[in-house]
Amino acid sequence: MSQPLTATRPTNAATSIFPLRQPPPLCSFLFIIVLIVATFYTLHHPDATPPLLFSNNALTLRRLFLSSASNATISSYLRALTRHPHLAGTKPSLDTLSYVTNHFQSLGLDTHLAEYEALLSYPAHISVAARFSNNTTVEFDLNDGPGDDDVVRPYHAYSPSGSAQGNVVFVNHGEERDYRALELIGVSVRDCVVLARKGESLGRGGIVKIAEAKGALGVLIYAENDGGGFGGIERGTVMRGIGDPVSPGWPGVVGGEKLSLEDDRVARRFPKILSLPLSLRNADIILASLGGARAPVEWRNSGRVGSGQRVGPGQTVVNMTLQGELTMKKVHNVVATIRGSEEPGRYVILGNHRDAWTYGAVDPNSGTSALLDIGRRFSVLLKSGWRPRRTILLCSWDAEEFGMIGSTEWVEENVLNLGESAVAYLNVDCAVQGSGFFAGATPQLDGLLLDALKLVQDPDDVALTVEETFKSQNNIIERLSRVDSDFSGFLHHAGIPSIDMYYGADYPVYHTAFDSYDWMIRNADPLFHRHVAMAGVWGLLGIILADEPVLPFNYISYAEQLQAHRDALSKLLQGKASVDPLSMAIQEFSLVAKEAQDEAKKLKEQAYNKNDVAAAAKRRELNDRMMLGERGFLDSEGIKGKEWFKHLVYGPAAEPESKLGFFPGIADAIATNSSEGMIEHEIWRVARAIQRASRALKGGFT
Amino acid sequence: MSQPLTATRPTNAATSIFPLRQPPPLCSFLFIIVLIVATFYTLHHPDATPPLLFSNNALTLRRLFLSSASNATISSYLRALTRHPHLAGTKPSLDTLSYVTNHFQSLGLDTHLAEYEALLSYPAHISVAARFSNNTTVEFDLNDGPGDDDVVRPYHAYSPSGSAQGNVVFVNHGEERDYRALELIGVSVRDCVVLARKGESLGRGGIVKIAEAKGALGVLIYAENDGGGFGGIERGTVMRGIGDPVSPGWPGVVGGEKLSLEDDRVARRFPKILSLPLSLRNADIILASLGGARAPVEWRNSGRVGSGQRVGPGQTVVNMTLQGELTMKKVHNVVATIRGSEEPGRYVILGNHRDAWTYGAVDPNSGTSALLDIGRRFSVLLKSGWRPRRTILLCSWDAEEFGMIGSTEWVEENVLNLGESAVAYLNVDCAVQGSGFFAGATPQLDGLLLDALKLVQDPDDVALTVEETFKSQNNIIERLSRVDSDFSGFLHHAGIPSIDMYYGADYPVYHTAFDSYDWMIRNADPLFHRHVAMAGVWGLLGIILADEPVLPFNYISYAEQLQAHRDALSKLLQGKASVDPLSMAIQEFSLVAKEAQDEAKKLKEQAYNKNDVAAAAKRRELNDRMMLGERGFLDSEGIKGKEWFKHLVYGPAAEPESKLGFFPGIADAIATNSSEGMIEHEIWRVARAIQRASRALKGGFT
Repeated sequence: MSQPLTATRPTNAATSIFPLRQPPPLCSFLFIIVLIVATFYTLHHPDATPPLLFSNNALTLRRLFLSSASNATISSYLRALTRHPHLAGTKPSLDTLSYVTNHFQSLGLDTHLAEYEALLSYPAHISVAARFSNNTTVEFDLNDGPGDDDVVRPYHAYSPSGSAQGNVVFVNHGEERDYRALELIGVSVRDCVVLARKGESLGRGGIVKIAEAKGALGVLIYAENDGGGFGGIERGTVMRGIGDPVSPGWPGVVGGEKLSLEDDRVARRFPKILSLPLSLRNADIILASLGGARAPVEWRNSGRVGSGQRVGPGQTVVNMTLQGELTMKKVHNVVATIRGSEEPGRYVILGNHRDAWTYGAVDPNSGTSALLDIGRRFSVLLKSGWRPRRTILLCSWDAEEFGMIGSTEWVEENVLNLGESAVAYLNVDCAVQGSGFFAGATPQLDGLLLDALKLVQDPDDVALTVEETFKSQNNIIERLSRVDSDFSGFLHHAGIPSIDMYYGADYPVYHTAFDSYDWMIRNADPLFHRHVAMAGVWGLLGIILADEPVLPFNYISYAEQLQAHRDALSKLLQGKASVDPLSMAIQEFSLVAKEAQDEAKKLKEQAYNKNDVAAAAKRRELNDRMMLGERGFLDSEGIKGKEWFKHLVYGPAAEPESKLGFFPGIADAIATNSSEGMIEHEIWRVARAIQRASRALKGGFT
Repeated sequence: MSQPLTATRPTNAATSIFPLRQPPPLCSFLFIIVLIVATFYTLHHPDATPPLLFSNNALTLRRLFLSSASNATISSYLRALTRHPHLAGTKPSLDTLSYVTNHFQSLGLDTHLAEYEALLSYPAHISVAARFSNNTTVEFDLNDGPGDDDVVRPYHAYSPSGSAQGNVVFVNHGEERDYRALELIGVSVRDCVVLARKGESLGRGGIVKIAEAKGALGVLIYAENDGGGFGGIERGTVMRGIGDPVSPGWPGVVGGEKLSLEDDRVARRFPKILSLPLSLRNADIILASLGGARAPVEWRNSGRVGSGQRVGPGQTVVNMTLQGELTMKKVHNVVATIRGSEEPGRYVILGNHRDAWTYGAVDPNSGTSALLDIGRRFSVLLKSGWRPRRTILLCSWDAEEFGMIGSTEWVEENVLNLGESAVAYLNVDCAVQGSGFFAGATPQLDGLLLDALKLVQDPDDVALTVEETFKSQNNIIERLSRVDSDFSGFLHHAGIPSIDMYYGADYPVYHTAFDSYDWMIRNADPLFHRHVAMAGVWGLLGIILADEPVLPFNYISYAEQLQAHRDALSKLLQGKASVDPLSMAIQEFSLVAKEAQDEAKKLKEQAYNKNDVAAAAKRRELNDRMMLGERGFLDSEGIKGKEWFKHLVYGPAAEPESKLGFFPGIADAIATNSSEGMIEHEIWRVARAIQRASRALKGGFT
């Protein structure tokens, strides 16, 4: 049953994004003249595209898009996609590939596959046994589903094979400061197996990396989020960097260059020590059994140490084994293309991954269902005569869970053309995890995002728009320094303005066997209203970015955000290094952003005439400059030690030590206690990146 | 006296570059309609540029350009520029700056300066003394001009200060194979001062670098080209890499980041051992005095060893001292802009440097005079109503002699926008050294270059065009792997299609005090006919690249050239590594090049209508793809050990050991006896670069 759940708010829509235009005087006469010219033109250029005499009405179009929403179709897509677990590289994952491909093709969309070969990692055999002080031994149950043989056993992809045996030490979140706390009470983890609870700031790869550096033999990680009480265990990857590890920096196309596993460029992508995930229940058993030193006070106060209040080592010995399988598998991205009518060589890209650790109802197929419904609704618009000005791509990525492999290989293969022609990348991974709208964006898209939210009804309160709830709730547009979904390659490597969105956060069944359709309809979105809202926002953003003659970018927001970043950095530095180069660069950037904004306003106010070559050229040049502004933040040398990451404003730093969340190169320099000179050099690099962005936005040369 | 020395050849011109079009039927009627529309448009858009109703006739324009040539003005420019030596950073160089700036401004051209601070190097004190076997001592005269105090003493810029004393060993050209020949006869240069004669393949920086690696204490270099018999001594730089050494990789703007001299990134740009240039006569004195081992047979046969036929060490000891001055100086580039009427955001750049070691009549002011005359003639065209479709820049670079510093800093400052908007870079350094036309180009410009040569009369034979003489003489368009003039930053760092041209080669007064106006009119171009021809070719290339609606690029030539490069590489490798990845990539590139060529042909054949938005958009997209094709060859990692050089097809390799002259990364891997795996990795990198170029040329995504 189709049940439209979103509605336009005409007043907002008309004023904020695309005002209705009055026909100018003399229009009728000119129209007749143009008709005569066009008739002759058409008669004498039979091959040419006929001139478009009637422009789409943007408002009508957006209304049509929103009113074509359907929770029924979205739920049917989700049910179909989540029938079986569909881990990348496995047979059932090919069913989801066919499903998505057939869907786009049946809608009449031009659809193709972009396929790569990549090194994936599966568990063949795993075990964890503990011997306690009383000499009893427990062999832990490592399944998270009672008898669910379809799902892959909980493991850490790319952990080395082998076995590790040692006394257990509890290391809290496994951050550097946790090891410092242990050091203060005289505890070393050398030759031990560490037990860590996943915190908010350090990912599992980071936990393993630090443990390895401290001399641990193995790592057990558990999540306090206990799979919603079902005893779920969180799967995940511990690979360093993103993309196929045997084709680092280049596309892993079939027949292309692949490095051997022994090559240092490959080997350094993997941890040297074993790691495995553990259920909360099993972790609690170990925690309770620990002897050794008394836990640091703060840890005890946090309530998460065992009943003995001790962290080890001593009393409890763990033996863990892992026989993994590293194997080359095909990964399949699906790309559906809606060719632009006027600027086919400019692209708006919507992307979501398809592969899942288990059933993937939240992660990622809530997003896939929304994408498929956007495809359906776009095809309705196409049938009603719409053709977007720019080309829209709907992308379904593979093997994201192993480290954004599908999207990363595609970005690597297309990086030059992306830089030249991609207007924006709009990512949705887990569309619906629960309640509340969350989004991250590069700052020039903030205004557009909020404008789009104004047009979509809140799924949890019919009287409000998503924008109103968003503003009253968290009201923070995050910045995309995270490396946890497919926007990473687009933003951090290729410098494409990006948005990432999701409903809800920190859902309990994350990466467990319980991330299923049942869980979704029981817990997160029974009537698929949130799915509809997400599809509405996502699709609208696509339409607006594809259709607006002048790109709806606002670099003044970016300048303000950079200013705030500068202030936060300055505060952290406390005079240890000068931020003057940043201040100067941001000042110039603000001026240029203002000029671009004024120019955009002027061009928007001009009557839009499809046959005005000069105006079209002016718009195109401004649009190109605004598109390229973001590319300025890329630096060909990249972030030190993580050179693949080229964006100097947003990207991965040694979190949580860096405390910043932006300027990753500077953050790393501070976190690693670099000299003042090295910190200032990193500050200069960011300042020069901002200068490049200014020049891109301004155009021309010095 | 103005004496036009070039004439168009109407038949060639009309067929080869821009055929005259017949007005299509119905033209008159449409014209009236368009007039009506345009009138209303103009009335109701008073601010807009009036629609251009009459297109320039390309042929007439080119005729007008060629007929406005003047050897008298060029010679007057050259005389004014070469009145005093004008080494970069010195006071007299500011006079040439004013001269060039005033010239462009007086023509009404929009002119600005792009200024940087850079570390330049001057000699404060130099000496070379020899003690012979008979215990006599000679203090050599190190001046090349009899009593010419205006010119800087012959020196090697960036040689360290200090003194070196040791037995002299003659090392022939100072190449690796020369040291191998010495080793065979038991001669080591450790702790010696080496004497090298400059050969054709290894530059002075390379000679010093190898000598340093062999343990020499100092280097004396002489040129066999004895300044035309005047006893000239060749100045030059021995810096490694190009651009300001204290701002490596970024623009050395005033107030920007500068590294200290102790920083490794700076220190590695300079040799660790002293070097100085010597006159042929002084070198002969030392050569004749040498004892030690008998010279290798081939050296003796070449006739360039001393009368004793010995290479040292023994008998002759040299003591050399150098007190140099490393100092920050302002460098000043001049940029004159002729704004494009239809595509102001696309750029054709003509560039030449202005600074000279001495008077610089050949190097570089023969080129500067031609550039100034092109400016004069362009302003004539502008006054006659011409406005180029794309923007043209006339650039006068500073501090080229120290290592392409002015142009490199500018490229570094503008690299993002250059990549986005520069159609081509046309370089002329020494416009006239003697007779015979020589040129290097990226291969997609070969056809355009030959077409332009067909339009210009040969300066030495009125019955022929430059193209006819060129074809009957050397007939080889070189490839631009050299790093010896300002095209380097544009091509090797920014991937801009480039041309470099000169009349004559190997002129005897190179970098000596005798490179003067007098020498020019007595030896190289008494009546400035060759200057006129060069200005004709250069300016025409600028006009054509700026005006042609469809860019006159031909990537089929590039594909053929790559194929030939592949064959030469394959022959050199003799099966040691597979070139299959290259073959596959070139095959794809050939197909895509053919498609682009067909598309260009079709678009060229379409009647050109300034008001046809759709056709304009199609041309723009094809042009952008052709512009970007060259960028595909860039790789963000660059050439190993020379990472600033990003172009993987053309760029510096460890010549002459590499034997290739292209694919510098592969060449280096072979020259350094890398493993098969490393050579194959470099082959893969080039293959992927060619794939990127294919995708850029094709547009869109995989």
